[in-house]
Amino acid sequence: MKKSDAVQLIFQPLLQQRGDSVWQPQREQGLAFAPTNIALCKYWGKRDEQLNLPMTSSLSVAIPEKGSMTHLTLHDQPDDIVVLNGDELAADTQFVQRIKAYLDLFRLEQSWRLRIDIQLNIPVAAGVASSACGFASLISALNDMFAWQLSMRDLSILARLGSGSAARSLWAGFVEWHAGVQADGMDSYAEPLKFEWSELNLGILLVTEKEKSISSREAMQHTVDSSLLYANWPRKVARDMVIFRQALQAKNFSLLGGTAESNALTMHATMLSSWPPICYFLPETIAAMHQVWQLRKEGLELYFTQDAGPNLKLLFVEKNKEKVLGAFPKLEVSKLFVE
Amino acid sequence: MKKSDAVQLIFQPLLQQRGDSVWQPQREQGLAFAPTNIALCKYWGKRDEQLNLPMTSSLSVAIPEKGSMTHLTLHDQPDDIVVLNGDELAADTQFVQRIKAYLDLFRLEQSWRLRIDIQLNIPVAAGVASSACGFASLISALNDMFAWQLSMRDLSILARLGSGSAARSLWAGFVEWHAGVQADGMDSYAEPLKFEWSELNLGILLVTEKEKSISSREAMQHTVDSSLLYANWPRKVARDMVIFRQALQAKNFSLLGGTAESNALTMHATMLSSWPPICYFLPETIAAMHQVWQLRKEGLELYFTQDAGPNLKLLFVEKNKEKVLGAFPKLEVSKLFVE
Repeated sequence: MKKSDAVQLIFQPLLQQRGDSVWQPQREQGLAFAPTNIALCKYWGKRDEQLNLPMTSSLSVAIPEKGSMTHLTLHDQPDDIVVLNGDELAADTQFVQRIKAYLDLFRLEQSWRLRIDIQLNIPVAAGVASSACGFASLISALNDMFAWQLSMRDLSILARLGSGSAARSLWAGFVEWHAGVQADGMDSYAEPLKFEWSELNLGILLVTEKEKSISSREAMQHTVDSSLLYANWPRKVARDMVIFRQALQAKNFSLLGGTAESNALTMHATMLSSWPPICYFLPETIAAMHQVWQLRKEGLELYFTQDAGPNLKLLFVEKNKEKVLGAFPKLEVSKLFVE
Repeated sequence: MKKSDAVQLIFQPLLQQRGDSVWQPQREQGLAFAPTNIALCKYWGKRDEQLNLPMTSSLSVAIPEKGSMTHLTLHDQPDDIVVLNGDELAADTQFVQRIKAYLDLFRLEQSWRLRIDIQLNIPVAAGVASSACGFASLISALNDMFAWQLSMRDLSILARLGSGSAARSLWAGFVEWHAGVQADGMDSYAEPLKFEWSELNLGILLVTEKEKSISSREAMQHTVDSSLLYANWPRKVARDMVIFRQALQAKNFSLLGGTAESNALTMHATMLSSWPPICYFLPETIAAMHQVWQLRKEGLELYFTQDAGPNLKLLFVEKNKEKVLGAFPKLEVSKLFVE
């Protein structure tokens, strides 16, 4: 199934109500913020590349104050313009091409063109889920501009068509993205989980702001195609998802942190076993991991997770914040739940 | 089955011929050298912990001039003495305990005691197979001292009882250790392969000489017990063993090197996915890996393998030696086949 067919499925009811005005902006502007999300149980591997349908479910937590603010403005230029943090991007960059292809899904024969102003307060393409919150805020801003009033479930499905993990970037707090089983992906959407955990802190440890050498999109496909170990990844996720729910229910931080760390390391393990190998570890990444393990050995409850990039995200509880900052002075700490 | 029962099986024919004199030294001294071996297809995981029976077959190449020279001398002290590179080791060290337990397999009620002089020209317990060549040279020296005249197959089985990969350390060149299927391990022994490859070079890149934090013995058991990815390791080995034979047959260096690197990374991947995780990578290990990948991207045919320790072994052919040494000036290069 093509992305445009999935879009048609979502808009069918709305088209019956509103007809072709669905594809016409109802306002001059659209605005939305979406928080970045950090997967505790990773999304790694697709069952459908076209629709970004995942092999497994996944679970994330949002960083409420970090993410993407997207501001759309109708303009009468012949082409869309993408402005990232104040700088207009060249039309031939991959990022701009991706956004335009995404807008085309809703443009059909219509001739509207947009200025897309994106304010990101996280590094681009360094494994901090910039494309996830980017596409989540883009679809939300479109929803605003076109006055679609779509349900969160529909927005999640549409966000997924832009970037898989964008499906999870529409809420604060813990979010679960259901893998689903349908070929059209209508059961593959995310939902917020009712667990709150005000003591929880997450620190981003940037070991580099350089763009990663291989996109997560390519890395996961290459892994699925060439790693013999990947076959057991779905079993790992199935087990971890059960444990995550137990950990959230019981507010068992060691269980949550340990399962997140193990899940991330197992994802990177599948990459190392692909050929040619993919290794997002930099020397600084490994040094930080050993430091975390040493601190844990000394009794500090500290765990990490790592996405498709060299940076680590550290998980700890409020009462250990000073100790963690003592060990990692440059850590960018965020509270995950506002009290 | 106990180790002593396996020893009995091996010595049955000899006992019928020679009776109890089998357990008595026939000479005052015994001497043997065994080369260290570097696995291209790793031994990782046991089907029998007692007898060091492996889950899978494995394949190694020896470094002919690096290894262990063991010199045994009968003495009239009340206890064995182990001297490593000239220094007498304390009786309570793990290494000495392991050697004495091994000697006990052949000592039965006899009261002989030995001075065991081991000259190792590789670092101890840093993932350069010191215990493999150590036990291989020890059993060979015992064979000499007791005039057993055992077959190489029997020596390989007996060496395995000391340390799994010691089974492979009795020959120069390429060696295959057959996993075997029998519970008594009598079909789990190594054999030399007839392939020669005089252009082949191996360089040891020592990033540290420190002893590793966890022994390979413990690491492999922990991995088998706790990594969900380990289940597919035997499939990986089965495939790689076929490819290694093709590569050796065709003298296809890229195929040999690439398969060795992928096999090693996959072994380390299983460790990363165990819990608590095992990570033999140091920052320097990862830096060297990235350097190898960069050089390969630039056209240099260079591959690495890594054992249960932070050091890398680089594989390349003679004509690229100068370039490789240019990139890694401290590399200890060995030719693997003497012309």
